[in-house]
Amino acid sequence: MPEPTEVDTVACVGAGVIGGGWVAHFLARGYRVRAWDPAPDAAGKLSRLVDAAWPALTELGLADGADPANLTVTGTLAEAVGGAGFVQESAPEKLDLKRQLLADIDAVTPSDVVIASSTSGFSMTEMQTVAANPKRLVVGHPFNPPYLIPLVEVVGGELTEPWAVETAAAFYRHVGKSVITMDRELPGFIANRLQEALWREALHMVANGEATVEQIDTAITEGPGLRWPVHGPCLTFHLAGGEGGMAHMLDHFGPSLKEPWTRLEAPELTPELRNRMVEGCDAEAGGRGIAELIAERDAAIIAIQRALRR
Amino acid sequence: MPEPTEVDTVACVGAGVIGGGWVAHFLARGYRVRAWDPAPDAAGKLSRLVDAAWPALTELGLADGADPANLTVTGTLAEAVGGAGFVQESAPEKLDLKRQLLADIDAVTPSDVVIASSTSGFSMTEMQTVAANPKRLVVGHPFNPPYLIPLVEVVGGELTEPWAVETAAAFYRHVGKSVITMDRELPGFIANRLQEALWREALHMVANGEATVEQIDTAITEGPGLRWPVHGPCLTFHLAGGEGGMAHMLDHFGPSLKEPWTRLEAPELTPELRNRMVEGCDAEAGGRGIAELIAERDAAIIAIQRALRR
Repeated sequence: MPEPTEVDTVACVGAGVIGGGWVAHFLARGYRVRAWDPAPDAAGKLSRLVDAAWPALTELGLADGADPANLTVTGTLAEAVGGAGFVQESAPEKLDLKRQLLADIDAVTPSDVVIASSTSGFSMTEMQTVAANPKRLVVGHPFNPPYLIPLVEVVGGELTEPWAVETAAAFYRHVGKSVITMDRELPGFIANRLQEALWREALHMVANGEATVEQIDTAITEGPGLRWPVHGPCLTFHLAGGEGGMAHMLDHFGPSLKEPWTRLEAPELTPELRNRMVEGCDAEAGGRGIAELIAERDAAIIAIQRALRR
Repeated sequence: MPEPTEVDTVACVGAGVIGGGWVAHFLARGYRVRAWDPAPDAAGKLSRLVDAAWPALTELGLADGADPANLTVTGTLAEAVGGAGFVQESAPEKLDLKRQLLADIDAVTPSDVVIASSTSGFSMTEMQTVAANPKRLVVGHPFNPPYLIPLVEVVGGELTEPWAVETAAAFYRHVGKSVITMDRELPGFIANRLQEALWREALHMVANGEATVEQIDTAITEGPGLRWPVHGPCLTFHLAGGEGGMAHMLDHFGPSLKEPWTRLEAPELTPELRNRMVEGCDAEAGGRGIAELIAERDAAIIAIQRALRR
């Protein structure tokens, strides 16, 4: 298999919002990109998407040699994957289509090249059933827009071999992404489960006339949303406990988990769960005390507010 | 009742993390603050909290005359509320305590002054049962830290009169907060319901070994959390639908609401709910097309990333 640092060409299959976002990201990181999409206007759509993203990518900082001209839209799938050291599939979310497309990509791609799917909805175990060589098929799930949001969730299916998961994670890290490698398949992976829990509660509230769309968005952008680029939900609540951190927070506010604050019931706050949360926060804090984390949070929120005001 | 613009002194009852955060906010907005807390070390705790927050508040921009020396910690509740044009109560989340404390504050506060509770857990209907003059008691629920996060959720109880809710909302806006006025009581209000839905799903995942604390926090800070200070969850998904916006998103991804992506089941996507979401997003977008919103989002995410990198 090619080392992540040896890859110079990436194939992107599918040229929608996500596929096009990947194209823009890889171009900005200095790669040659070969893209294929069966839609007749794929080349035009891709070039408009890349043009629209390029000023942002330039401001973030381009890699040496990065150039929109490094994009080739090919007439066939085989031309796209030929010579590519990594393949990113971003086709529509239809299981039969994904199954067959992954099999088709697999058939024309050298067997040591990892093929990653951007799917948000399917497990690789479901999708790799038709491919002849399923061991190098992985999920590499990005967030919109893939050229700006760093997160990629990487997980294999039952037939995926560990080297493929490791190679995909290493390659994504090499191209500047933040990678979470999951050791098991979970519907919605991690970030979408969290996001979707919030979204479903929001839909219930709108359906019941409890809140408007605008109130929901304002509640997030002017409220907890300002903390979330800084500290995730766990570390945020670590600070809500004062000097006692997550331990105090759970011991003190634990009973509120019984309150009907959302339609989702909370799990039982067993000593095991309590300790897992406390130890996880301590590990994440990595020696930073509460006062230090608060100072970091405050500085970051102010920086965000000043940045958004401009 | 005093006009919001005529208030020059605010009483803060309770000097914990939230009460102290309010004290810092009102001081930074140029108010005289009179604080009372029965704890013996209240004055020392408050002064440390204000000192810790002051550099951040200075950087955000102080109002004319803002000075930590404008804080007076009083020996009695009556001294704190005497002369105050607005009262903010931030006592511990214990219902009996809140009920009696609000009755005590009510007994010594001029009847035209609004008394707001920072409660996150109780409705004003539950809390206003003991007070002699419950009509001016409202919930004014802030987010931690109250001196940085703009959101305040304002809602009255069954015995609250509309002028009290309107006065509280107007006063909070005058002191620089973003206000959501709710026309009905709802456990967890709006923002905490959304945040709590995500938090409960996170606790389930940790309890079941599906994700670690660090994976959950990374999933948010490196993923959707970067979008949420810019666009709330509804407008975010408005953009996920491409040029078709929320309408296309719901028509296209609606079936995923049936997927087990969180433990919370979604509501039925009726035509009414679909239209309410679409119309809400259109109203929020206020004439800005998808391309414009995308450009705005990208610029904001880049600004946030640059701000956090410093």
